[in-house]
Amino acid sequence: MSEVKLAENTGTGVYQFHRSIELFERATQVIPAGIYGHHSPAIRTPGVTPYYAARGEGTRFWDVDGNEFLDWMCAYGPMILGYNHPKVEAAAARQRQEGDCLSLPSPRAVELAERLVRLTPFADWFVFGKNGSDMTTWATQVARAHTGRDKIIMVQGTYHGKDAWCTPGHAGLTPGDRESILTFRWNDLSGLRLLAERHRGSVAGIIMTPYHFPNWWDNELPAPGFWQAVRALCDEEGIVLILDDVRTCFRLHMGGSGEYFGFQPDLAAYCKAIANGYPLSACGGRAELKTAASKVFLTGSYWFNAVPMAAALATLDELEASDGVARMFEIGQMLCNGLTECAASHGLQLTCSGHPSMPFVRFANDDDLYRNQVWCGEMTKRGIFVHPHHNWFVSVAHTEADVRRTVDVADEAFAIVKRQFGS
Amino acid sequence: MSEVKLAENTGTGVYQFHRSIELFERATQVIPAGIYGHHSPAIRTPGVTPYYAARGEGTRFWDVDGNEFLDWMCAYGPMILGYNHPKVEAAAARQRQEGDCLSLPSPRAVELAERLVRLTPFADWFVFGKNGSDMTTWATQVARAHTGRDKIIMVQGTYHGKDAWCTPGHAGLTPGDRESILTFRWNDLSGLRLLAERHRGSVAGIIMTPYHFPNWWDNELPAPGFWQAVRALCDEEGIVLILDDVRTCFRLHMGGSGEYFGFQPDLAAYCKAIANGYPLSACGGRAELKTAASKVFLTGSYWFNAVPMAAALATLDELEASDGVARMFEIGQMLCNGLTECAASHGLQLTCSGHPSMPFVRFANDDDLYRNQVWCGEMTKRGIFVHPHHNWFVSVAHTEADVRRTVDVADEAFAIVKRQFGS
Repeated sequence: MSEVKLAENTGTGVYQFHRSIELFERATQVIPAGIYGHHSPAIRTPGVTPYYAARGEGTRFWDVDGNEFLDWMCAYGPMILGYNHPKVEAAAARQRQEGDCLSLPSPRAVELAERLVRLTPFADWFVFGKNGSDMTTWATQVARAHTGRDKIIMVQGTYHGKDAWCTPGHAGLTPGDRESILTFRWNDLSGLRLLAERHRGSVAGIIMTPYHFPNWWDNELPAPGFWQAVRALCDEEGIVLILDDVRTCFRLHMGGSGEYFGFQPDLAAYCKAIANGYPLSACGGRAELKTAASKVFLTGSYWFNAVPMAAALATLDELEASDGVARMFEIGQMLCNGLTECAASHGLQLTCSGHPSMPFVRFANDDDLYRNQVWCGEMTKRGIFVHPHHNWFVSVAHTEADVRRTVDVADEAFAIVKRQFGS
Repeated sequence: MSEVKLAENTGTGVYQFHRSIELFERATQVIPAGIYGHHSPAIRTPGVTPYYAARGEGTRFWDVDGNEFLDWMCAYGPMILGYNHPKVEAAAARQRQEGDCLSLPSPRAVELAERLVRLTPFADWFVFGKNGSDMTTWATQVARAHTGRDKIIMVQGTYHGKDAWCTPGHAGLTPGDRESILTFRWNDLSGLRLLAERHRGSVAGIIMTPYHFPNWWDNELPAPGFWQAVRALCDEEGIVLILDDVRTCFRLHMGGSGEYFGFQPDLAAYCKAIANGYPLSACGGRAELKTAASKVFLTGSYWFNAVPMAAALATLDELEASDGVARMFEIGQMLCNGLTECAASHGLQLTCSGHPSMPFVRFANDDDLYRNQVWCGEMTKRGIFVHPHHNWFVSVAHTEADVRRTVDVADEAFAIVKRQFGS
């Protein structure tokens, strides 16, 4: 990550971020690095990015300097219906009146599990947690408990969460943390087969995202037949196939992203968009894995909180009622096409990779992403919140007018890139 | 755990749990084990415990059968000011209007870190997560990053969360998960010293709760001078002292439980009561550890959600304004004294161990906790929600009238225990 060169503030935009910077300076006094994780300014473009948000509504948020942003990051995924969505908030408020964190679970846990089971062709059961990591890590443990094997295969460079076996960080780890982890390259079926053969009888699970969305580079869809071959390999070798649907769930398909790519996993971890921002994650599984699932310890202080579950039920209702998946695909395509065409009109080549609802956008001839940083910085300073190193997110609330406004601003920002870098 | 014999429903109470049982049966169809973790009915007394709560207010909750309970479990810790506390809910509602899960952190993160730093004598910084485990595990990694060493020492039988290095579960683990973990017995200073000597130069951290509160047995306070000796040992050996204050924080001392026992840790993990039930955890640390802390990766989808942070600020305000720590101590002592005296009047010997705000209650001559199960079952069926195998929790909302009502019901329940078991 640290090798990517960061752009300086070119100073031409209309937005200023004085209060963000002031608050960030206060933060560095009392929080290591000031802001950490995926919100870290270190992975954005310094000087052209606000650091703190004051308010959100629909597809907009306002930073602490009062700047308004049309938001294509959607809180990095959780916002799928628009900020402060009336139906989700009403359901959450009703539940809050009754109770949230009590000494017993709420009926909402049962209703949500039933709902997700109905929605998800492969799954016979669900459990709930708070973080995506809670579920991806637990899924690997269920695979181990089910098979009596140790090894987990994952794709190089895939983010499955903050836990030691998969964190992108390097500090504070022990050799034991990853001694059961094997890796192969995305779409490299022969590499995967070799790994499974070499470790035959000791591979408990393969964990993968539906398609490959590393930060800092183009996202990659599965090659034709790839998922079907992975599924067949798992069946042959008695390996549990774990789908990490944390970032993708309900943006590709309501039945889980396996349905979108035409395969069924054995376990799937959900998070992000499941409750439009209320803290909740989930893992669903096949009937055969239910016994193992009941044996692997899982709990957390707030895991049966009822409000996020009520919010999830309302979110799923609204996603279905609005035909949200199709809507996001359409808007995402419109956005990618609009931006690509506008770039071309400046003689610039823009690429959009991954699924249209979660596009990764960059310039074709921009290996160090420097042009992308300048361009996203200029977009941000003009009220369009986009990211130069991470896939964007479309929501059901985004409109054609939002796309037009984005393309209009992009037109100005492309002109700046063109002046600074040429074609 | 499974060795403790569970009591049958003795059938004499007034409460019935038909709807709870019906809902639990539905749950077992779609959730492994129906209810998991600390809410699991398997660790309560079957047939005399409701499974699902419908509503909460103050110190009361109502189950799905409409039974009212005076609650001494406080959601296993998070409820510290009473369910649905007006000031906390007002602060949360204000923040929710502005925004919760947005594409940038909220100023509340900075304000809360500043507030906690002011409150906590040893800490120069704080970070935030969702689960207690997020913070205990991260703290061990920070200790490793800071010292360049691998080993972590913990107390046998202590719960530090669900993560593989410390989970009380056994399924799904690999040998690597615990190869860097060393254990000693609570209060066994010579055992600890021997361990530190044997592994001199390779121990990164010692993680401990402020006092020992295993489930299924008496809680144990630190022996006089124990914590001071542990602190001295850490200083001599360059070991990071990690306080797991997840369950205890803000019930023993507003400055952290180290203050209560007269020592200062290097890192401390908070959770449970920090936001009166809103999902939030935190870890504070000394200035010397800030660089290491900034290097160990940490993030989660909802970790910068602003509502739980606003709720935490209001919770801390109210705890201070109400002199909550002293209040809980007083009510806890009153409860323990009242129950012990009432038991004695029946010729029964009841023991209360641990801190009065979090007492573990059992009969002296009841090694298999069978009497305790019968007694807690009879209490529960009469509207007093207590636990036979886990410490209870006192809140600021509990009143002397609540204690009197509890002792009145206990009087009936002691009579049943006396008839069934003798003295």
